[in-house]
Amino acid sequence: MSSCVDFWFDFASTYSYVSAMRIEALAAANGTQVNWRPFLLGPAFTAMGWNDSPFNIYPAKGRYMWRDLERLCEHYHLPLRRPSRFPRNGSRPARIVCAHQGAPWIPNFVRAVFTAAFAEDQDIGEWDVVAKLLHNLGYDEKALITAGKSTESKELLRHQTEQAVALDIFGAPTFIVDGEMFWGNDRLEYALAWASR
Amino acid sequence: MSSCVDFWFDFASTYSYVSAMRIEALAAANGTQVNWRPFLLGPAFTAMGWNDSPFNIYPAKGRYMWRDLERLCEHYHLPLRRPSRFPRNGSRPARIVCAHQGAPWIPNFVRAVFTAAFAEDQDIGEWDVVAKLLHNLGYDEKALITAGKSTESKELLRHQTEQAVALDIFGAPTFIVDGEMFWGNDRLEYALAWASR
Repeated sequence: MSSCVDFWFDFASTYSYVSAMRIEALAAANGTQVNWRPFLLGPAFTAMGWNDSPFNIYPAKGRYMWRDLERLCEHYHLPLRRPSRFPRNGSRPARIVCAHQGAPWIPNFVRAVFTAAFAEDQDIGEWDVVAKLLHNLGYDEKALITAGKSTESKELLRHQTEQAVALDIFGAPTFIVDGEMFWGNDRLEYALAWASR
Repeated sequence: MSSCVDFWFDFASTYSYVSAMRIEALAAANGTQVNWRPFLLGPAFTAMGWNDSPFNIYPAKGRYMWRDLERLCEHYHLPLRRPSRFPRNGSRPARIVCAHQGAPWIPNFVRAVFTAAFAEDQDIGEWDVVAKLLHNLGYDEKALITAGKSTESKELLRHQTEQAVALDIFGAPTFIVDGEMFWGNDRLEYALAWASR
């Protein structure tokens, strides 16, 4: 029995928002530990020949996604305000997470960033927005932002993104349990069930 | 309260197989009527700039899909044998359905075609394979194949495919209830719940 799920997400990804808000309670009830693994979808999309989100490149798919997301958020009682620009750049909050992998405050921070992005239409690609979120959570934003801005955090995120592509990850959210991949918010429960096999 | 779900599918589509095998029992339990709407994904894919299945164009996505399909079929107790060629051409069985829209034997025929394609690796793009399936079901295969080969059935399928694109359908299976679209086998239960609102 595995007790770990690797949760691969991009802060710019709509369905990652839904999973990020749901995963901790479900995993706890399942006795499964969550490894929070932010990465950038950009390089995976570039490898597929896309220079933008597929939801922008394929308008019918995009129109459907926004409606589907509305219904899902209603279903899960999650707030939603469609971002005025999509996708946002998720690299800065992702660098903060990479610089503090495994820290106990990461889940709270991740949820705060996703909420800012998808419920409050804030530009999470800006350092000052990220600093404000850290401050509001009661964390030492100055030290955390300094670590996030370091070359080391940039390298960690680049490495984690390369690892995602090497793992055959092509979208987000993706859950990996014992080498078994599950793609999409719809598969979160399947991934946790796999962890309990 | 709506009592109808339009079930849009392509006989070549892997996730349409799963939904085609599940929908009738679930819809009956829900008191919902199923309108079986075969169409061809080809024109929708062409509109997105694809000249093949995205599962072939994007290898990582394809590898994932086949594994996900295996798990789903195990979950739903459906037989699966990966087709030696993918995608098959679903136009011929689709023409049979279009020529007999609403006939009571359509659900049985649809399931027989999908089973041949995804559990028995038969080439459902061949008229003689389709004729054999009809014969095995005890239907008058000569009359039905003649109707399927008619120009009228070809026009009906072309018209239905154009209608799918006009409805913004970009993949299969797609379920439409009261103008509300649900994409993917994962949304079948959501679509039926919508029909009961």
